[in-house]
Amino acid sequence: MTDRYELTMVQAALRSGKADRRCVFEVFARQLPAGRRYGVVAGTGRVLSALQEFTFTSAELDFLANQNVVDEPTLKWLSDYRFSGDISGYREGELYFGGSPVMSVEASFAEAVLLETLILSIMNYDSAVASAAARMKSASADRKLIEMGSRRAHEVAAVAAARAAVIAGFDGTSNLEAGRDYGLETFGTSAHAFTLLHDSEEEAFKAQLDSMGNQTTLLVDTYDVKMAVERAVRLSEGKVRAVRLDSGDLSSTAVEVRKQLDDLGAHETKITVTSDLDEYTIAALAVAPIDSYGVGTSLVTGSGFPTAGFVYKLVAHSDGEGWHDVAKRSKAKTNRGGKKFAARQLESGIAKAELISDHLPEGRPLQTQLVSGGQIDTRFIGSEGVKRAKEHHAAAITELPSGALRLSKGDPAIPVEFI
Amino acid sequence: MTDRYELTMVQAALRSGKADRRCVFEVFARQLPAGRRYGVVAGTGRVLSALQEFTFTSAELDFLANQNVVDEPTLKWLSDYRFSGDISGYREGELYFGGSPVMSVEASFAEAVLLETLILSIMNYDSAVASAAARMKSASADRKLIEMGSRRAHEVAAVAAARAAVIAGFDGTSNLEAGRDYGLETFGTSAHAFTLLHDSEEEAFKAQLDSMGNQTTLLVDTYDVKMAVERAVRLSEGKVRAVRLDSGDLSSTAVEVRKQLDDLGAHETKITVTSDLDEYTIAALAVAPIDSYGVGTSLVTGSGFPTAGFVYKLVAHSDGEGWHDVAKRSKAKTNRGGKKFAARQLESGIAKAELISDHLPEGRPLQTQLVSGGQIDTRFIGSEGVKRAKEHHAAAITELPSGALRLSKGDPAIPVEFI
Repeated sequence: MTDRYELTMVQAALRSGKADRRCVFEVFARQLPAGRRYGVVAGTGRVLSALQEFTFTSAELDFLANQNVVDEPTLKWLSDYRFSGDISGYREGELYFGGSPVMSVEASFAEAVLLETLILSIMNYDSAVASAAARMKSASADRKLIEMGSRRAHEVAAVAAARAAVIAGFDGTSNLEAGRDYGLETFGTSAHAFTLLHDSEEEAFKAQLDSMGNQTTLLVDTYDVKMAVERAVRLSEGKVRAVRLDSGDLSSTAVEVRKQLDDLGAHETKITVTSDLDEYTIAALAVAPIDSYGVGTSLVTGSGFPTAGFVYKLVAHSDGEGWHDVAKRSKAKTNRGGKKFAARQLESGIAKAELISDHLPEGRPLQTQLVSGGQIDTRFIGSEGVKRAKEHHAAAITELPSGALRLSKGDPAIPVEFI
Repeated sequence: MTDRYELTMVQAALRSGKADRRCVFEVFARQLPAGRRYGVVAGTGRVLSALQEFTFTSAELDFLANQNVVDEPTLKWLSDYRFSGDISGYREGELYFGGSPVMSVEASFAEAVLLETLILSIMNYDSAVASAAARMKSASADRKLIEMGSRRAHEVAAVAAARAAVIAGFDGTSNLEAGRDYGLETFGTSAHAFTLLHDSEEEAFKAQLDSMGNQTTLLVDTYDVKMAVERAVRLSEGKVRAVRLDSGDLSSTAVEVRKQLDDLGAHETKITVTSDLDEYTIAALAVAPIDSYGVGTSLVTGSGFPTAGFVYKLVAHSDGEGWHDVAKRSKAKTNRGGKKFAARQLESGIAKAELISDHLPEGRPLQTQLVSGGQIDTRFIGSEGVKRAKEHHAAAITELPSGALRLSKGDPAIPVEFI
């Protein structure tokens, strides 16, 4: 999970004697994706988890040796690798903006430079999904949201996507591995294939109800929706938990189905919809009598922005006598050097600005210690980490000023001020 | 890596007695992404690899039991699960269009329905990356292309992205795990951090050359490009393999750097560029004196289409006496039932149409057997699979009619005809 140049830089730095120089690397996005008003930090807990296992196995070292990627002294150094530095950063679930120092890694150059790809991969993907999920949550009018996009993402990324979606407000996922790894609630319905497998829809519904009981969701759009709804109510004696619509004009169909369900006395039966939903279609369905949304493709691909654009930059190093701020100084892509502290300035509980400085500004501090001398704060990983992140996100998003949750393109919800 | 509803459908089908019904599920895309002229099939070898390991561990079964996902008979059935069916499909690297039956899974309903999420996750992500990579390859005028996008994709997806990129024409990757898993060539340069770590650029370049020799790439845009190029040539006595540009106007800078290198006698020193490249910027740089491209974000996110849109649909089942074609018949999203055979119709080696039928049409057959009675054809997996897929892709793409490789939006390069 590491780019070749990280290892060759370690080799060259070991040779030049600079490998042990204490460094600060910072993770930040140069700006939010165009038109987005805020971003959601996600992946932090997964970074810490991955860090626990970040070592070089003998098989990996053999590969590096056989391919002449690095020399013997570097192989030896890698074989002993264990991250022993400090990491601080925004709490998972926190909001971020362009320039927010969402994570800071302080360690020797060699120890810290090796983590670039791993940290960025995790933070970029997870935050892209969480940022999209938060928009869907705000469009959902607090109806139930289920992540169902596993099939539209790399099979392992899908697990991370489910986790990120739940942190940003989703109620659960269809992905069982995500349920197992992170204690998420899992949900399921059935596919058209199940209906088509049977010799009739009647037979398929009977089979599903017989096996699952009434606490199940019947898919009613394989043939004719009206007939399917009638059948679902009749076979469950009006008690089936929900019916699912996956095609057609969801809004008008939902109105018809709700009326039909009510006319048949199935007042408790819910309507769940799926079918290439995104935050805009969810918002457009606000007036329809829908109880829950299953969201796939647009969620796991970040709804137009499949990566968050975080970079990992050296901002300071110490020669033992003091810290030196550093930054690239070519014409384009200038960075801001120095270790940074961040706080959110609030007035009556509403965010006014994000303040960033070389000392902690007044306001709600945004950074917390995640790793100290190689010791990982385990409260941020696994199921507990997800629960904390979800709670933190729910609280943080209430601080945004009115209008910040609009889906239309706009400026960042608050300015970022370097003071 | 499985959606909850697949397991509950297995349970209901075991109960209804239909679980053993022989079924054909088909993987296809309803259409190409808007404006794309062709797609590239990738992931096939990874599907076969994943299938080798697709079983339910006792820890996984415990989770399913504790969460009451499925009942005891289903748990028992899952604990014995080993795919014993047949899979055929397009060769990896092959081109596809809307409706192409890129993979067909024939097995009992229960065995086949369980693979939906896994197969779609892999095929959707890998094909999205390969389809973007092929466009970059055709824009590159056969200059070297290196995949460098790991940091902009989920950490495990990044390995698959490197693999897919190489299949569709890339020369290598920066991702070491991809190099190790699939025998890909790995490449690396160095980062701005390495230069900034040292007390001067002079010291950094010396350290890199001292450690790596002249077969390395010096990054020349940390401070002043002109001074850095002079320094790179002087310190390597004109022999450094390459210099890298990562910012600014790459086209005009490359012209200046090439002239400077030539004036200094470093005629053999190559110029490599990186910096948010996509197929359009690569095409626009065709006139610049550039030797290789490092491509990241747009490649690993499918250049605007981060998922290929493949679906997995039941198209036929057998009651023991004969096959029955099935398809969803609601108003929207109608599918075409029946097991399908596909061939590419060629005239003088140029593709005219993709023919799809219930028997093998005339032309170049597009499907090959991948799994027979649970036995996986191992020629398609691992390093050998990647090599075969790369060769197959290179041959297949030469069949496209002139104009098909244009980057502009357009209709599919050839029509798909159901005959």
